[in-house]
Formats: sequence, C-alpha cells, structure tokens
Amino acid sequence: MKFQDVVRKRRMIRNFTNEPVSDEVIERILEAGQHAPSAGFSQGVVYVVVTREETRQVIAEIAGEEWYVRCGHAPFISLAPVQIVICTSEKVYHDRYNEPDKKGKGQEEVNWPIPYWHTDAGASLMLILLAAVNEGLGTAFVGVMEPKRLQEALGIPTEYLPIGVTMIGHPAPDMKSGSLKRGRRSLDDVLHREHW
Amino acid sequence: MKFQDVVRKRRMIRNFTNEPVSDEVIERILEAGQHAPSAGFSQGVVYVVVTREETRQVIAEIAGEEWYVRCGHAPFISLAPVQIVICTSEKVYHDRYNEPDKKGKGQEEVNWPIPYWHTDAGASLMLILLAAVNEGLGTAFVGVMEPKRLQEALGIPTEYLPIGVTMIGHPAPDMKSGSLKRGRRSLDDVLHREHW
Repeated sequence: MKFQDVVRKRRMIRNFTNEPVSDEVIERILEAGQHAPSAGFSQGVVYVVVTREETRQVIAEIAGEEWYVRCGHAPFISLAPVQIVICTSEKVYHDRYNEPDKKGKGQEEVNWPIPYWHTDAGASLMLILLAAVNEGLGTAFVGVMEPKRLQEALGIPTEYLPIGVTMIGHPAPDMKSGSLKRGRRSLDDVLHREHW
Repeated sequence: MKFQDVVRKRRMIRNFTNEPVSDEVIERILEAGQHAPSAGFSQGVVYVVVTREETRQVIAEIAGEEWYVRCGHAPFISLAPVQIVICTSEKVYHDRYNEPDKKGKGQEEVNWPIPYWHTDAGASLMLILLAAVNEGLGTAFVGVMEPKRLQEALGIPTEYLPIGVTMIGHPAPDMKSGSLKRGRRSLDDVLHREHW
C-alpha cells in the first residue's frame, strides 16, 4: 500500500472478527516495528505476542476492557486474535550509554533529561500500527495503568516495563472513540515557525 | 512510495546538501506527524520549524553538533536546511484526563505509570521520519541533553519539553553511526510468544 494511504487509513479499530492472523503476518509486522530508531541503537524494545484466548482474556481484564465496554465499545481487547504487549527497558539504555564509545574514561553517564526508552517505544508502536494497516488489518492500542500486573501475568522481568497492548485482527463494525469529538488541532496550532 | 520501501529505506542521514526544502513539503511532513495517535486524543505534541541559518547554528550547538563532528561526522545538524524541534507537554495530558469523560465526579486523575506524552512524541517523530523519506528526502534525529537551553533559544514555554531535533534535507554522502556495528537484534531475541 502507498505510504500516504497507510497513514490516512490508520485509526483505532475497536472491534474485531474472530478470523485469526497468521504467524507470518505477525512476524512481518514486528519486523517493521524493529525498524524504529533507538538511542545508541540500544534496541531496548521487545514484544510479547499473545494469541491464546484464555491469556487474551487475562490481558484484556488488566488493560481495563470493562471500562471500554461500559463506554459502549465491543470487548475489542479480548476479541482481537492477536495482542502485542510492547515493553521497554530503561536498563538497556543505561547499559548502552556506559559502553566505551558513549562515555569517556572517568566520565559520568549522560543524564537522560528525556526518557528515550519511552520515545523509542512510541516509535516502534507507530510502525507496528502502520504495518498492520499495510497488511489490510485493523489495529488499536490501549495504555495500561497497572503494568506490574501485566508483568506478573506474562512473566515479564521487572526491568522491562510494558507500556500497553496493541491489538491486531480483521476489523468489525465498531464505535469510534468519544475523544475524536475534540477534533484534530489545526496545523497552524501545532506548528511554530523559526521561534515559538 | 510503497510503505515497506519507506520503512526499509529510512535510516539516519548525517550529511545534507544546501538545497532548501519547500514550505509545502515541510507542511506535508508535519501533517503526517499529526496523524500519530495520542492518549485521549490529547495532541500534546507540537513542532518548532527552524530554517534560518543563524538559528540552525544555535540549535546545532545546543544539540551537541561538536561531539558528532569530533566523531568524524559532517556538521549535519546545522547543515540540514530544516530542523524540526519536537516538543511534548505533560500538562496537556493532565488537563485532558481531568475532563469529565475521563474522570468521574470525585474521582482522582489516572496515575500515569507510563509517561504517554513521551510515547506519543515518539510515535509522531516516527511518522515525521517516514514522511520525509516518502518525499525523497533524508532525515535524522538527535536527542537533547539540555532541553532547557532549547526552550530559551526558541522561546518555548516551560510546559513544552523539547525531546530532540529532527533534521530534514537532501542527503549528501555521510558516515554511518558507529552504533550500527552492534547489529540489529534478531526477531527471535525480541519476540516472546504467549509468555516471556
């Protein structure tokens, strides 16, 4: 698909059919996700793919599916045949920036005013969403307010923080998010030229 | 361009010719950047576009161009005809999640275990990089260790944190990052199936 069409077509899909997605397609989508840049090429972003229905139900409960259903949405988190839990490791970045090419002898590690492990996870998430649309699939992302419970449910080490769950599947008719009523900010509103 | 080609073609370009990029192209690239999702459709990510050479030099100095040049790179931060400073506002997210549809009466605001303003900035950055490649241009991103100095130089309000600078321009022969010697992690290394 053309790049512009993928970008324009992508939106959060909040309902899925039960048609499965092949392993091959999942791998292609994650390979795209791996093409995100990362600070120092740290590559601290990893993925847990969940397709078993029982586990999907557990993940959906932790990710607050009940709240979405109360708002009128389909139970789209558990319905999606594929869930990708995106995790990022702050530790990987610290380790990387203590390597000799990033730190002179006797020097301190950089001070990380920006948590680039989150920036990079967002970049990888974006590629995953786009790559799913490029495969003709629907996709959504939900944040998590209880990442620790996700770690426990999936055996994720404490140093890898799950930042949320991406759903992938064949789209079914859905209800759009109420947040969209806010409208997109105009380009003039978000673009400052030469100076704020 | 086809989506897969854009993804595969994108890499950090660390040298640029002095050929300018038209306003129209810059706007198309930023419009793509605006198509990143954001928590609650908060849209807390904004951009400062710098094209004036004098200002580009100031930004390049703050972004540590000297270090890159010492490593053997061209002075690619100041050479790029377009710099986009990407900023994100934590405050916009707090304001959004205190609106009635996100918070019941008497309820507390969500506790933000993940700084989604950084996740969303990363997603927007990814779209900007891809959109620049789709325009046939070269692009790079550098993080900033002194965001406060960027705020001062460009008059960015303290509530908008600059997360780094994206360069856009016509690519010139460059030296690749030493970090690439690390190699890309294999898919098996970053993909866990059903459970970690």
